[in-house]
Amino acid sequence: MKQIFSEITIETKGQGLYNFTNKTMNWLNKQKISNGILNINILHTSASLVIQENADSDVLYDLENFFDKLVPMDNKLYKHTTEGKDDMPAHIKSALTNNQITLSIKDKKLILGTWQGLYLFEHRLKKHTRILSHHLIGN
Amino acid sequence: MKQIFSEITIETKGQGLYNFTNKTMNWLNKQKISNGILNINILHTSASLVIQENADSDVLYDLENFFDKLVPMDNKLYKHTTEGKDDMPAHIKSALTNNQITLSIKDKKLILGTWQGLYLFEHRLKKHTRILSHHLIGN
Amino acid sequence: MKQIFSEITIETKGQGLYNFTNKTMNWLNKQKISNGILNINILHTSASLVIQENADSDVLYDLENFFDKLVPMDNKLYKHTTEGKDDMPAHIKSALTNNQITLSIKDKKLILGTWQGLYLFEHRLKKHTRILSHHLIGN
Repeated sequence: MKQIFSEITIETKGQGLYNFTNKTMNWLNKQKISNGILNINILHTSASLVIQENADSDVLYDLENFFDKLVPMDNKLYKHTTEGKDDMPAHIKSALTNNQITLSIKDKKLILGTWQGLYLFEHRLKKHTRILSHHLIGN
Repeated sequence: MKQIFSEITIETKGQGLYNFTNKTMNWLNKQKISNGILNINILHTSASLVIQENADSDVLYDLENFFDKLVPMDNKLYKHTTEGKDDMPAHIKSALTNNQITLSIKDKKLILGTWQGLYLFEHRLKKHTRILSHHLIGN
Repeated sequence: MKQIFSEITIETKGQGLYNFTNKTMNWLNKQKISNGILNINILHTSASLVIQENADSDVLYDLENFFDKLVPMDNKLYKHTTEGKDDMPAHIKSALTNNQITLSIKDKKLILGTWQGLYLFEHRLKKHTRILSHHLIGN
């Protein structure tokens, strides 16, 4: 059994969903593990991870819009407002989605459905550098 | 260390929660791995996975009802409406719950609490065939 | 490859977020596995797990408050009310967050961001004894 630890960095341009499926697949192709578990953790609490439809970009628009209405950027609603109106909503949206995703790798390929893509969900309004830990365990 | 990749298919009859704990346990019993990690991924973005109470079916009714109110089936709210009023709500409910669950296996048994069951949460109104990837790694 | 199965018990004093990062780190320090996967499962359906900011306790207050407003403790809204007004909301909050977290371990340390902590989110009003399964697999 082998293990590989790495990080993939994603530069976001503010709130929205960023497809990183290809980045992860390209990284996988270079590793000497064909079958195993890939554990991806986002090392931040104001951005998160979702597996979502990769076909129609309207899905991404609607997702972002739904979460904005569900968790309003209104400082009157929160005590934690030190970094601005998008600060606490970002933490809540993160709790409602995922900090980590565990994927299965078979023959060097991610086991995903045809319409599934891996997305980083940036919840802050300004651009950020986001680090995704990639830990591969298998043989 | 051994690895086994398989798929379990669940035929849903439309929106609702479907307990697949027994299906997964029966599958586990046939595998030659006693201890390890079982990674379950649903290969769809309009149905999802939850671990929930397995005793009182009212819990399942209330869960379904809560998510219906939280994410209304109203085409005026969404841009992505190609497959009907239940299309975009299905993606959102999926993002609010889980695409995958990672379970621990000890002595061929799932480590779950007494009242915990594994459920597929179908978010579409019509029946669907849903595939759950089962990946077991251990010895 | 080695595997270790253990349980960590957390006594909650009612609804709120309980940081157990140190408990898990102390347990990890005693194990003879340096690199691998740590799968943590909460064996209950009325409390859950979240990775959240560990710096400002206002974040925890706002999180708890948000979920209380989103999922009201009002028996008129639910059929499942056998254990009181906090019963069904606890199951729903659990479905909206996580039953399990899969973490990567490198050189005996959890791979977490600087501001990330592991929290048990107790959703019941009264105190409870909560069991977190800890399963470590690696070498």
